[in-house]
Amino acid sequence: MSNYKVEKIFPKEVDLNKWYTSVLKAANLISYSLVKGCFFIEPNAIAIWDQIKKHMNASFTKLKAQNVYFPLLIPSSLFLKEKKMLASFQKESYQIDFLNKKKLEFPLYLRPTSEALFMYYFGLKLLRSKNMPIILNQWCSVYRYELNTRPFLRSCEILWQEMHALFATKIKNRQFVKKVLNVYKNFLEKICLLPTIVGKKTNFEKFQGAKSTYTTEVVLSDGKVLQCATSHDFENHFAKIFNLKAFDSFNKTFFPFSSSMGLSTRILGAIILNHGDNNGLKIPSKLAVHKIIIISVISKKEVIDYIKKLKLKLRIFNPICDISKNYFGKKITKAEIEGFPIRIEVGLKEVKNNQISIVTRNDLKRVFLKNDNNIVINLRSILKQFDQSLYIDAQKKQKKFFYKLNSFQEYKKIILEKNIVALVPFCLTIKCEEQIKEETMSTSRCIPLKQEKLLMNQKCFRCQKKAKKYVYFSKSY
Amino acid sequence: MSNYKVEKIFPKEVDLNKWYTSVLKAANLISYSLVKGCFFIEPNAIAIWDQIKKHMNASFTKLKAQNVYFPLLIPSSLFLKEKKMLASFQKESYQIDFLNKKKLEFPLYLRPTSEALFMYYFGLKLLRSKNMPIILNQWCSVYRYELNTRPFLRSCEILWQEMHALFATKIKNRQFVKKVLNVYKNFLEKICLLPTIVGKKTNFEKFQGAKSTYTTEVVLSDGKVLQCATSHDFENHFAKIFNLKAFDSFNKTFFPFSSSMGLSTRILGAIILNHGDNNGLKIPSKLAVHKIIIISVISKKEVIDYIKKLKLKLRIFNPICDISKNYFGKKITKAEIEGFPIRIEVGLKEVKNNQISIVTRNDLKRVFLKNDNNIVINLRSILKQFDQSLYIDAQKKQKKFFYKLNSFQEYKKIILEKNIVALVPFCLTIKCEEQIKEETMSTSRCIPLKQEKLLMNQKCFRCQKKAKKYVYFSKSY
Repeated sequence: MSNYKVEKIFPKEVDLNKWYTSVLKAANLISYSLVKGCFFIEPNAIAIWDQIKKHMNASFTKLKAQNVYFPLLIPSSLFLKEKKMLASFQKESYQIDFLNKKKLEFPLYLRPTSEALFMYYFGLKLLRSKNMPIILNQWCSVYRYELNTRPFLRSCEILWQEMHALFATKIKNRQFVKKVLNVYKNFLEKICLLPTIVGKKTNFEKFQGAKSTYTTEVVLSDGKVLQCATSHDFENHFAKIFNLKAFDSFNKTFFPFSSSMGLSTRILGAIILNHGDNNGLKIPSKLAVHKIIIISVISKKEVIDYIKKLKLKLRIFNPICDISKNYFGKKITKAEIEGFPIRIEVGLKEVKNNQISIVTRNDLKRVFLKNDNNIVINLRSILKQFDQSLYIDAQKKQKKFFYKLNSFQEYKKIILEKNIVALVPFCLTIKCEEQIKEETMSTSRCIPLKQEKLLMNQKCFRCQKKAKKYVYFSKSY
Repeated sequence: MSNYKVEKIFPKEVDLNKWYTSVLKAANLISYSLVKGCFFIEPNAIAIWDQIKKHMNASFTKLKAQNVYFPLLIPSSLFLKEKKMLASFQKESYQIDFLNKKKLEFPLYLRPTSEALFMYYFGLKLLRSKNMPIILNQWCSVYRYELNTRPFLRSCEILWQEMHALFATKIKNRQFVKKVLNVYKNFLEKICLLPTIVGKKTNFEKFQGAKSTYTTEVVLSDGKVLQCATSHDFENHFAKIFNLKAFDSFNKTFFPFSSSMGLSTRILGAIILNHGDNNGLKIPSKLAVHKIIIISVISKKEVIDYIKKLKLKLRIFNPICDISKNYFGKKITKAEIEGFPIRIEVGLKEVKNNQISIVTRNDLKRVFLKNDNNIVINLRSILKQFDQSLYIDAQKKQKKFFYKLNSFQEYKKIILEKNIVALVPFCLTIKCEEQIKEETMSTSRCIPLKQEKLLMNQKCFRCQKKAKKYVYFSKSY
């Protein structure tokens, strides 16, 4: 909605929550519906999400995944078959008990996740190991009833993608899970410009039905950590539960190996919170539909004509133009709130000198550029610098939260005062982690895949028994 | 799923329903879930739907529409405000009565359509006539409980797009509705290659809350007609019901004018039924992700190398290759079932003569083409002919169903025997149409916008009172 009522943004350093809510409103990202935890996702947010879909679909095609769309409604008879993981969703699921005024024998659940459906679907097909793997992906919404909700970070209606794969061997299934983990990591770092923490979940934190869960997490500006994408290796647990059998090359049956991988609109929360400032959003250039906004300083014919030609010349950046007669100041404020990587201003001076005046959204610094044959190359290089600066800024902001600790006393003291991300030697037992959670309200984020070697006889930072791995602990969203 | 169990297709001329079901299965389009009317939409169907989305999004961007995503769940307090249209959905809506074991004061409906939500959303914004129109679109799924379901044609879970617009004047709103109607018509005819019937719905057939409903319909191979896309002009009816007010240029409030426009996966049903034959699908070239499939006749190194080079040369058509060691005959059958517009076969002879052997899916005729510098241009022209032949074939098949009649006796006699589409002079009264439906099980499809002039004193084909317009009547899906 091209609305010129420019909303105020609350200072980020004063109150991050209020800042976040004010940016969501001012940048036309979210409005609140009558149903708690379900939001109106507005054009500027969907535009970024559509770019995310485009990037991910390109990566998924390389993995030979195929897109499908499977039903929202799952009957309880199917859904509750798996007790460890799926049945645990029951209490937070939306369900339909009546249809056509008749009570249903098996209530219908709104999918909180679709493992059961994919298993049922695979069971309809003749599965032969020579035709595996089968890799399917769907972009859909899932439903989980939550009491404490915040747009993107924790909502009851979640837009996401869920990929479900079926392999003939345990090893290939595991390799695939790690491959997709790497796709997520690269996407978060190179496209979203967010440094990540990548690793395996502890037994305490993993999905209960999964053999292993891998995760890509991002430290947000307040030092809390957000789980952005996960990959689950189910080995043949689900195949066994759903009695799914495949034929090997000798025509003998076996239980195939399955995995699921997902990424949601939470990632939008991470982008907004990490890159945004008191002027509004900063959109990574590869996620910006319009990488450039061109604004007229004054409504004169020669200015408008100049802008039209410029728009055509710069079409590779899909520029958007604001040549309205609104106050110049308002137009600038609006462009900054919406986070376009580059803003070009054109007034009479620019027309006269055949140049453009550029303000980059990362530092709001102004440069002038000749409107010559090199303009596209020059702008491309400015965009590259813009992206680099976003990544480096995010790294800098995160750095101060990282600690390496050996003492639980010290950890507890600090984390009760402020949010930190601590790498600690840990015994990996569920019991010890339960205690840590109880005493500090913090949890393990992951066991990083790249491990520093533990000292001989290194003890667990809390229980003092033998440490098994270095693990990240923090507060999380 | 690259499965070489090639399914049989039932003869189309013997039983259209059985043919349809067998094609859905053989071409990997649909599998049946445990919930009636909710289907697994498989890779080959989603691939076409994604192409449809791409084409429509491009058209919608030209209309200055912006994509959003609004909640699935609508509380009854909001949904039932509008009695004429929305409350009529109540009996076919899925609803959630309990949350967290508590009975809800206002049950939550799974959207059967989202007018109420868009009205509520518009109400959150400061609406000024100078900032109108507001044109929003969402790609989502809607839910309508149905007893008689068939994949794509009538399902309980429907994938669609719904566009909702708000205008400051009645005329501009009406113009927009007709503009979008034209977008649908062009899309159906030029991209889907389906001749259409376009017009206004009678008062009997229109959405009850709408002032006017416009429709784009397609005659299917059995002579029944499928409503493919509709555009509703609500004038300011919804604004009044939802007490939605906007400010004009004098700062006076007024009720703005709204409209909604939608197209669903029904269109996939129309494409399959109209173009398909006893060998399977025929996909219009602009909806085919892979416009060409290249098949190896024999697994020899020189053949595979030749195919790899060819694939690169023809990349503009995004060709897919089947160089598996499966039987050549099976590979061909599979390619025909899945409906690729062009199939290229490469064996040793083709390599030796530096040529390709082409079979076009419309007529299964074979031609040979030199693999020279003109190959891309030549293939492009073959694709164009392929599309033309699909459209002409569809026209021919439809033609035999069209009648122009003045006598109800004659109409009744014919329509009780076979499916026809009759253009008849009609009085437009609801009462007369009710009677026609009762006596013939057929309904009006639309009042064509381009009208032949009625004779002076032309009488209604049924009641013999004064005829107002020529109207199409038929049986429908």
